[in-house]
Amino acid sequence: VNAARAAPAHELPVRVYFEDTDAGGIVYHANYLRFAERARTEFMRSVGYDHRRLADEHGLLFAVARADMAFVTPARLDDLLLVRTRVVRMGGVRLELDQQVWREEARVAQIGITLALVDTESLRPKRMPEALRQHFATALGEPAAPP
Amino acid sequence: VNAARAAPAHELPVRVYFEDTDAGGIVYHANYLRFAERARTEFMRSVGYDHRRLADEHGLLFAVARADMAFVTPARLDDLLLVRTRVVRMGGVRLELDQQVWREEARVAQIGITLALVDTESLRPKRMPEALRQHFATALGEPAAPP
Amino acid sequence: VNAARAAPAHELPVRVYFEDTDAGGIVYHANYLRFAERARTEFMRSVGYDHRRLADEHGLLFAVARADMAFVTPARLDDLLLVRTRVVRMGGVRLELDQQVWREEARVAQIGITLALVDTESLRPKRMPEALRQHFATALGEPAAPP
Amino acid sequence: VNAARAAPAHELPVRVYFEDTDAGGIVYHANYLRFAERARTEFMRSVGYDHRRLADEHGLLFAVARADMAFVTPARLDDLLLVRTRVVRMGGVRLELDQQVWREEARVAQIGITLALVDTESLRPKRMPEALRQHFATALGEPAAPP
Repeated sequence: VNAARAAPAHELPVRVYFEDTDAGGIVYHANYLRFAERARTEFMRSVGYDHRRLADEHGLLFAVARADMAFVTPARLDDLLLVRTRVVRMGGVRLELDQQVWREEARVAQIGITLALVDTESLRPKRMPEALRQHFATALGEPAAPP
Repeated sequence: VNAARAAPAHELPVRVYFEDTDAGGIVYHANYLRFAERARTEFMRSVGYDHRRLADEHGLLFAVARADMAFVTPARLDDLLLVRTRVVRMGGVRLELDQQVWREEARVAQIGITLALVDTESLRPKRMPEALRQHFATALGEPAAPP
Repeated sequence: VNAARAAPAHELPVRVYFEDTDAGGIVYHANYLRFAERARTEFMRSVGYDHRRLADEHGLLFAVARADMAFVTPARLDDLLLVRTRVVRMGGVRLELDQQVWREEARVAQIGITLALVDTESLRPKRMPEALRQHFATALGEPAAPP
Repeated sequence: VNAARAAPAHELPVRVYFEDTDAGGIVYHANYLRFAERARTEFMRSVGYDHRRLADEHGLLFAVARADMAFVTPARLDDLLLVRTRVVRMGGVRLELDQQVWREEARVAQIGITLALVDTESLRPKRMPEALRQHFATALGEPAAPP
């Protein structure tokens, strides 16, 4: 059993507009990071935390520490994509996510994201309160056994 | 009676993500043009035409010829905005739209857009077939009397 | 004599990259606002003020209040554009600029910009200190007689 | 001796504008991919090939196949960054690059990029003519011994 795959996934539909494409006729590669960030934001919002609440109540911000991207199939104008997001690992200061972009049965992009929790003012690493970590771990679907 | 105001409006909700903001803490002004273009695209899709169909069946593309923007109230991260789009005038080669961005009762931005119909290959002005113009005029809600 | 044309202009070369284009094969219209803002920033820097200095010393930020854009000739990947910026009018709280985008002898876009001076914290209108206004008026080339 | 480090590097200065930042006050992570792509484009241009020439003469396009990014130090508005680009490996259909973003002595971001040569029409993999590969290998500074 693959724990990471067993975790529930969040899904966000994303439509491709002109703003997302480039002169090659396809989605500009950097824009998949925008789609992935929208999906993470909605994932967090779905469990009760938008950016403001996390900042106001805890002085915390999720900063992107790493992004590893593979571009598999080009997406085009008017395409309706689906961003599937899963938690791979959640610690007190790091959150690892697996984000996949699909167009129906075709995988478009595969994105591994590592977020680091930082203080909103200093931008230095800051540990999540344990109660908040528990809430996220349960709500976002942390794998039972870290892979 | 103001004919333009009487025309039905299309409404598209738009969420503000980090990608849309700048270091001033507000939505970067150019991004309202992205929101407006998403709204126009969905307006057209709602009456049966996405960009591909218009290109494939008629060799036509709506190019932005003019944009006149007033920025009224700043929008911020996590805001849920509403883009309201109305047809002001529709000719055979030009389409004028009024697009307003609202956050609840606050007007955020006011955008007047003039689109020019162009050939997808040459990018030169090209007249819309009359049947298509009639379809759009009816479906998009052209004011009975041009203002 | 046209005072606005007589004012000295600032020129910034801008190269068109994939990021600037869309699936129509041309520069995405909203991106001319990015080019224009780069040009304004370099114009201000050329007379001694980057955004940080203006914020740190005076608590001031130039916010875009209006933008009126006409798209004349499409620009394409690899094009080398020139953004020409002139002051049209400078008051204590408003700054009007004429910004034109050229590709050699072809006008690509014409952009009229109105900036409003605002407080960096409240984002409310704030008057420029007279000494600073004089500095900018002289250095940026305010027309002798407002048009 | 590290061959990859011994290869000559291309350097492109990049100024941070409002368009590049987000409400966290720092450069939005996806935008480093834009900076990196500008640097690659100028690197290629410096050895005689812009996108158009590669497309017109060879029907070739460099598509981004992989991007692995580590964000080390946040960059901010008005910062002057330097993008340093080196060839790590060059084959007939793949090109691997090491791209680093620096602000003076501080490393801001580390980006590994794999480009795949594709046909401009089909977007399918297409081999570089050997003469062109030799030209690029010499001019771009392929390491003598692949790492």
